Amino acid sequence: MTKLFMFEKPLGMRDTFPDLYEIKDRTKKRMEGAMKRWGYKFIETPSLEYYETVGEASAILDQQLFKLLDQQGHTLVLRPDMTAPIARIAASKLLKDQAPLRLAYSNSVFRAQQREGGRPAEFEQVGIECIGDDSVSADAEVIALMVSVLKEAGLDNFKISIGHIGFVQELFKQIVGTEERAETLRRFLYEKNYVGYRKHVNELTLSSIDKQRLFSFLKLRGSDNVFAEAHSLLEGEKGLQALEQLKELWSILKDYGVEQYIKFDLSLVSHMSYYSGILFEVYGEHVGFAIGNGGRYDKLLEKFGKTSGATGFGLRLDYVLEAMKVELTSSEQECVLFSDERRKEAIMLASELRGEGKEVVLQNWKGVGDVDEFTKGFSNVHFVVGRDSNGNGGEKR
Amino acid sequence: MTKLFMFEKPLGMRDTFPDLYEIKDRTKKRMEGAMKRWGYKFIETPSLEYYETVGEASAILDQQLFKLLDQQGHTLVLRPDMTAPIARIAASKLLKDQAPLRLAYSNSVFRAQQREGGRPAEFEQVGIECIGDDSVSADAEVIALMVSVLKEAGLDNFKISIGHIGFVQELFKQIVGTEERAETLRRFLYEKNYVGYRKHVNELTLSSIDKQRLFSFLKLRGSDNVFAEAHSLLEGEKGLQALEQLKELWSILKDYGVEQYIKFDLSLVSHMSYYSGILFEVYGEHVGFAIGNGGRYDKLLEKFGKTSGATGFGLRLDYVLEAMKVELTSSEQECVLFSDERRKEAIMLASELRGEGKEVVLQNWKGVGDVDEFTKGFSNVHFVVGRDSNGNGGEKR
Repeated sequence: MTKLFMFEKPLGMRDTFPDLYEIKDRTKKRMEGAMKRWGYKFIETPSLEYYETVGEASAILDQQLFKLLDQQGHTLVLRPDMTAPIARIAASKLLKDQAPLRLAYSNSVFRAQQREGGRPAEFEQVGIECIGDDSVSADAEVIALMVSVLKEAGLDNFKISIGHIGFVQELFKQIVGTEERAETLRRFLYEKNYVGYRKHVNELTLSSIDKQRLFSFLKLRGSDNVFAEAHSLLEGEKGLQALEQLKELWSILKDYGVEQYIKFDLSLVSHMSYYSGILFEVYGEHVGFAIGNGGRYDKLLEKFGKTSGATGFGLRLDYVLEAMKVELTSSEQECVLFSDERRKEAIMLASELRGEGKEVVLQNWKGVGDVDEFTKGFSNVHFVVGRDSNGNGGEKR
Repeated sequence: MTKLFMFEKPLGMRDTFPDLYEIKDRTKKRMEGAMKRWGYKFIETPSLEYYETVGEASAILDQQLFKLLDQQGHTLVLRPDMTAPIARIAASKLLKDQAPLRLAYSNSVFRAQQREGGRPAEFEQVGIECIGDDSVSADAEVIALMVSVLKEAGLDNFKISIGHIGFVQELFKQIVGTEERAETLRRFLYEKNYVGYRKHVNELTLSSIDKQRLFSFLKLRGSDNVFAEAHSLLEGEKGLQALEQLKELWSILKDYGVEQYIKFDLSLVSHMSYYSGILFEVYGEHVGFAIGNGGRYDKLLEKFGKTSGATGFGLRLDYVLEAMKVELTSSEQECVLFSDERRKEAIMLASELRGEGKEVVLQNWKGVGDVDEFTKGFSNVHFVVGRDSNGNGGEKR
């Protein structure tokens, strides 16, 4: 095992320096504001949960979990997502007070990374959960709110892909028969490996008509024009309910006036295994990954002993900032530089400027090595130095 | 090993429900605002650090660390404090740009708890570090800022105990001779076990004069009147520098106008082993523990290869809230309850109310089980239901 340098950080762990912190914090607060105005209430859950409970209920792959043992011999995990902990709280407490329940969060989640990946192992998720409403109204609200939150963050150029896991499951069941074979196909889809999907379909022992159905399925992308084509791929009535839900969703989203952000992609499948109905991903410019995703997860609450429909979304704050292509600029600071003789005067001046809402560094002259170097970053420097106390000292420049 | 209930959380881990979250968030933002106005810039460090580096540099007892292994076989720790990670960043990067450096943080830290304790194992610390200024000016600024932050949070009834680790070390060295014996005495002090201290002193083979010095030492509490008494306990010149620093500190704190919050306690000793000079603790009403602490730690940066004076404080947000004795009150929410026929109208009404800054739940009638139960928590309910679309629907009450 190699010796570590004192400055090294664990794989995938990052520092956030002041310039980035400021933009991140400002953006996050705006996003949180939108969520609050839509009636969502913020909660917080602990960073550590039991593996047996929330860890297993979460849909994150086992090898991505950070695990540790507690003193009682139980395995703990660093929360890999917020949906499972919130399901725990909703089922154990909050659903008793109000249903539907609207909850929001803004927290770090943790996913262990491979050495090769270079991806963050800790990142902030900002999101909401609407629990206890089975209607498509709730799905639409969640998507419309996500649009509102992204716009509030300052993004306008993004697209939301919407699909329905029920449609995918039914179609695959009709064509390939077994859950195991359907699962193989679904894996190609959530890896977005369409070449592999086509190759795999070609190798299946299916009629050429069925193969064609599986190929045509990949083309179910666009606006509400995809529904007729999707309908034609199904045999009989099963799977139609999923399409009806998507049509209703489209109609509600038009009432919200957010249709320009929406495209349907009926081949959309998530790595989050708990999704059970309408699901979606959102993509911004300049970012290779989905900046957020969400969907309906009606089965998750059952793991915590409640039967309750639920839907929600989570946005990755780091990707949102990447999509914004923000320029890092520090906030303006002024400096009051003083010598001991005029300390009290300097303290009063700083206090006065701070009272006006300004950010003011108050610095004793003798604590500074190179004054020119130290003062160059400030928008204004007040020199309160020297023995003669005439006025407030000189202004820089 | 007992089987866990699905709702159980690991030892010392807590959920934060909406009512508490709101007050916590509001208080935290106010505290952060004060820090920014004093020119401190916020940074964030990862939750996980290497044990070998930051873990060992932190002053937290080994048994209080949450440890885990990464895939390369290195031991990781959940950060037990923020001072050591910030020292890492300052030494590796930020001190090159500016010195003195003023940094702030507001983050969770982690301390593993014993089953008996019932204390939180994860809690938020809000604090600052002023790095690269050896002068007493910096110590005074840190204490004055802490007063300002606590007042901004809404607290006024608190006391800051100030001591100097250099004075304690010198006095003990003069009387008991060895570092080992001094360490034993210091341990009684940071456990605030004064009965044990007296008993231990009585058992030492010392002259009765020296024993009296050790007993008198415990009485060095009060205002600037303690300095003369402290001086009389020392032999020769050593240790006087510490007293001179405290006197200068007192004079600066008077210039800041915060003397009513200050009392000296020259027997103050911290469990944080890195403190090297002036140190302090702050106590509020209703709270048995210090709600915050801080001090000068001129040696910590050396572990990261820099020689640089530093001082700072950290406040425990949970204890600050406890000292405030806040009443939990939810924010006011309105509700727009609609039926499908008048959906678009309801969406527009909600959007309008949200535009006024109101928090508005928009809810489809059919997604609600018990309407009376659901609507009772809102300050106002707008019914936008039924086929006849005359006006905006009825107001509740």
